[in-house]
Amino acid sequence: MLRKEQNDLLTQTGPGAPMGQLFRSYWLPALMAAELPENECPPVRVKILSERLIAFRDTDGKYGLIDEFCAHRGVSLWFGRNEERGLRCPYHGWKYDTTGQCIEVPSEPRESGFCQKIKLKSYPLVKRGPVLWTYMGPPDKQPPLPEWEFATVPPEQTFISKRLQDSNWLQAMEGGIDSSHVSFLHRGDLGSDPLFKGAKGNEYNLKDTRPHFEVVEQPGGLFIGARRNAENGNYYWRITPWVMPTFTMIPPRADHPIHGHFWIPIDDVTCWAWTYDFHPVRALSAREVEAMRDNDYLMDRAAQKAGKTYSGVAGFASQDASLQESMGPICDRTKENLVSTDNGIIMARHRLMRAAKALLDKGTVPPGVDPEHHKVRSVSIVLPPDQAFKDGAKEALVGRPGVAQTTV
Amino acid sequence: MLRKEQNDLLTQTGPGAPMGQLFRSYWLPALMAAELPENECPPVRVKILSERLIAFRDTDGKYGLIDEFCAHRGVSLWFGRNEERGLRCPYHGWKYDTTGQCIEVPSEPRESGFCQKIKLKSYPLVKRGPVLWTYMGPPDKQPPLPEWEFATVPPEQTFISKRLQDSNWLQAMEGGIDSSHVSFLHRGDLGSDPLFKGAKGNEYNLKDTRPHFEVVEQPGGLFIGARRNAENGNYYWRITPWVMPTFTMIPPRADHPIHGHFWIPIDDVTCWAWTYDFHPVRALSAREVEAMRDNDYLMDRAAQKAGKTYSGVAGFASQDASLQESMGPICDRTKENLVSTDNGIIMARHRLMRAAKALLDKGTVPPGVDPEHHKVRSVSIVLPPDQAFKDGAKEALVGRPGVAQTTV
Amino acid sequence: MLRKEQNDLLTQTGPGAPMGQLFRSYWLPALMAAELPENECPPVRVKILSERLIAFRDTDGKYGLIDEFCAHRGVSLWFGRNEERGLRCPYHGWKYDTTGQCIEVPSEPRESGFCQKIKLKSYPLVKRGPVLWTYMGPPDKQPPLPEWEFATVPPEQTFISKRLQDSNWLQAMEGGIDSSHVSFLHRGDLGSDPLFKGAKGNEYNLKDTRPHFEVVEQPGGLFIGARRNAENGNYYWRITPWVMPTFTMIPPRADHPIHGHFWIPIDDVTCWAWTYDFHPVRALSAREVEAMRDNDYLMDRAAQKAGKTYSGVAGFASQDASLQESMGPICDRTKENLVSTDNGIIMARHRLMRAAKALLDKGTVPPGVDPEHHKVRSVSIVLPPDQAFKDGAKEALVGRPGVAQTTV
Repeated sequence: MLRKEQNDLLTQTGPGAPMGQLFRSYWLPALMAAELPENECPPVRVKILSERLIAFRDTDGKYGLIDEFCAHRGVSLWFGRNEERGLRCPYHGWKYDTTGQCIEVPSEPRESGFCQKIKLKSYPLVKRGPVLWTYMGPPDKQPPLPEWEFATVPPEQTFISKRLQDSNWLQAMEGGIDSSHVSFLHRGDLGSDPLFKGAKGNEYNLKDTRPHFEVVEQPGGLFIGARRNAENGNYYWRITPWVMPTFTMIPPRADHPIHGHFWIPIDDVTCWAWTYDFHPVRALSAREVEAMRDNDYLMDRAAQKAGKTYSGVAGFASQDASLQESMGPICDRTKENLVSTDNGIIMARHRLMRAAKALLDKGTVPPGVDPEHHKVRSVSIVLPPDQAFKDGAKEALVGRPGVAQTTV
Repeated sequence: MLRKEQNDLLTQTGPGAPMGQLFRSYWLPALMAAELPENECPPVRVKILSERLIAFRDTDGKYGLIDEFCAHRGVSLWFGRNEERGLRCPYHGWKYDTTGQCIEVPSEPRESGFCQKIKLKSYPLVKRGPVLWTYMGPPDKQPPLPEWEFATVPPEQTFISKRLQDSNWLQAMEGGIDSSHVSFLHRGDLGSDPLFKGAKGNEYNLKDTRPHFEVVEQPGGLFIGARRNAENGNYYWRITPWVMPTFTMIPPRADHPIHGHFWIPIDDVTCWAWTYDFHPVRALSAREVEAMRDNDYLMDRAAQKAGKTYSGVAGFASQDASLQESMGPICDRTKENLVSTDNGIIMARHRLMRAAKALLDKGTVPPGVDPEHHKVRSVSIVLPPDQAFKDGAKEALVGRPGVAQTTV
Repeated sequence: MLRKEQNDLLTQTGPGAPMGQLFRSYWLPALMAAELPENECPPVRVKILSERLIAFRDTDGKYGLIDEFCAHRGVSLWFGRNEERGLRCPYHGWKYDTTGQCIEVPSEPRESGFCQKIKLKSYPLVKRGPVLWTYMGPPDKQPPLPEWEFATVPPEQTFISKRLQDSNWLQAMEGGIDSSHVSFLHRGDLGSDPLFKGAKGNEYNLKDTRPHFEVVEQPGGLFIGARRNAENGNYYWRITPWVMPTFTMIPPRADHPIHGHFWIPIDDVTCWAWTYDFHPVRALSAREVEAMRDNDYLMDRAAQKAGKTYSGVAGFASQDASLQESMGPICDRTKENLVSTDNGIIMARHRLMRAAKALLDKGTVPPGVDPEHHKVRSVSIVLPPDQAFKDGAKEALVGRPGVAQTTV
């Protein structure tokens, strides 16, 4: 249970808020590269951390992420014309380049130097993998580019999507950390979903609905291990990495692709639920990509499978979203009652609060900024009872190019 | 005309508000019994006095009215599975019985005693007649069950329905007390509505549009008598009981069923308009029940009867709702101008304010809690001019099982 | 750029606000005469300067503009019956005449004199041309009726319409003053719109996208002159009058009708964009009226003309509305960057602020109240370079009955 001021601290990410500053220490996914498919394509509205921005791709392929509103009289540049190396406001023709610099004001003499003085707020926008990333913090603190494995494997091995969620980012992210709900909420889908079925691990999952949780601190975040009984006194471990502030990865099943999420605040009551799916050593099949699309676009399978799901809602994403949104726009954590399976959530919150305060008070670079922290893998593994997962799965928890995942 | 603080006092019924405490002294209709038609049927969201609750009926037929949100992490139990003597949250499987007691937390060892410590807020939910009633006040002050006549006659003699109204409860209830509007707003329907037509009393109603009002204080509320001229110097009286805080009964016409209303706050800007119809000594006919449904479900008869209604809106309920909602969400009573026909309303407000203050200051049990106060009948009667209605209709104003109503 | 308190001052027009008082010095267009087409027609809701009112036309053809809500218990008189020289509330039959005077309370004895004491707030409502005008200020300060030329020419020479705009009035009005955007936003339409095409002046407009602006103070407001190059060293002038507080007139083109706008606050985040079109000396043709309707009702021509418009939005009104609404409900003028072409806007704001303060402090009658100030015309004219437009167009800028406009 949190005090009200703690809940406020964790859930508010606008400019000026401490958690807003923390988020502004990281490269964050701003939009899918496919949303700006070609040079001079239409600009796209992007709202992120409560800031209203416009993303565009200019004549030369440069990406820009700038203030949504023209510096002249405040017209939205979503109406802008993307032409000749700049985005031009249709009202009076003011034109901006991808850095937000005004490069033309038609009504003013060019020699007046007026337009050089006009510059819109802007942030870097960089393609890495199938995602356009932005960094919204102070330029002198800009970290190296992210090195998440899904964004660095060859393009045919990775797939990305996102869906809008009507809730604060934190209750969404907490659902990503909390793998204990899988045995309940998603149980009906383990055997049938094309991205899950057929794994030996599913049997352990369904047989043991009371996993034991162990959480291990990492420089960049946490490893959350869920231990269930396997054969011969051994343990089946599922290990979920959480990297600060909002990256989670679900443990793999058999040879299925690995998937996971980012939960990016749009404002304090909505967020983007990003999903990535990748395989470290092989291309995704057409069938897999189709199943990923189905899952992400919330296809209503209820009609197809009436009575076959646990929650009455079909599809992992719908199941999670329906419950997380039902908590209300910002979950009131002064009323919750956490149990042992929530340890990962409790520790993640404390890491976030500590990091936000250290950043605020001392300017400490928060965990997860260093790209080395990105090189994590989720793991599913059977270990003997006397072996701690952090030792037994040590190698498996590191992402290595060209090395397959460890999975059951 | 009220002062602003008086209007606020009367219209605010959330937890903590004085009028909210007054309402929490009574058994209130929470939902129709038909909304929970069988054991283990889907749970139903109930918002009442600004509290969000879930009603359900368990495996054994027990009714429960509990906090809408799971005590663990705040998921809405509307998504709950109603199974094996409890409502189970689909997120992590926490399970509650009809008293709100948590009876299972799958992730915790049963022997830990953890779940015994978890209890959701809950209120009693009791079937009486076609209604499920709740009492939301302190358990030690819980009064005996209500004894409204419509709820105690045999089921074939009674019918209940409700509709949502987009206004504060008080302006709706004031419309129920105020029978002087019948001569205007509803005049077109007196002759044709199957539940009204054919009564001798209708002629008095339509002939004398300036009734004289007399209001008589009662232990449980008020009797509001409207006097119109009849033949030979006699008076035609229509007497409307109001029982605190929100029960009204329209005087009967001929052998038609008696009907009336409860106006139950959902929050401070919406309410349920409950309608009951009953006959003290005979079953309702199929045609009567059909007409009741038509009235209550706001069937649009305008197309059928263009030009035949006084207000341009057809149907009693639509007529009342359109005007009461047009006053805005909370009518600003600092601007009203009340006249003699509003005496019932004025006295009702003062009774409410006095009772709310006496409850707040001295814990005085308010009028209308005692089930004896429920045994009232509305009356329509012709009396000689020298007889006060409280004397001439004294016996008729008491509800007695098996005794027909007094009606003209 | 304005300070926040200046932006608030200019944009807030409710009762009590200084700019609200300024607006209440003028006759304002309240509704089109066609909205009350005949005696005893249905009443119409009118919200203006944040006040909720009802307009109606009684049995004798008198117009009334009165408080929307009945003085009794607050029912909206939109439900009222318009009958026998008054508007009658359908709830209890209270009846009001066009001055808001209550003329009948059926439940009270006529001889009690009760209803004489009840009077709703009301404002004069007067037809002049195709518009019903109201004056919402103190009766003793009521100015003479307006004498706008479009409202005083014969009816076949004038056309009026209005559309709802989702923005504060000021950013809409500023678009009316600011003719520099025509060369950009509307360029695609100059050659094709039936109300613009074929004018010699269009060529000057399109050839010279950097007009020079000169603004001349007038007793009633401003003349905003835009100077472009013509042949032989001459200048092509387009002169836009702005009369306080919110009347603008676009310079004419060839023999096309003149048109212009009023921007009337509904509340602080929406306004009516009124458009008038008139020709000083001839009737409008059927084709012209049809084109005016098309423009005003925002006909979507995008499908027809894909790629042919500058902004991607077709139609002058849609072009303006889309951009002005994109600024948000109330444009944040603390962030704007004004340039030389915005001089008209800057001066208009200062005139408005000065007038609001003078009215507040000293009760000074503001400019534009005097009907002499209404007799302005917009002008398009070619002048030699050494002639100031205020001299060269002096006569042309005055509206004279039966004299054609000066236009190129």
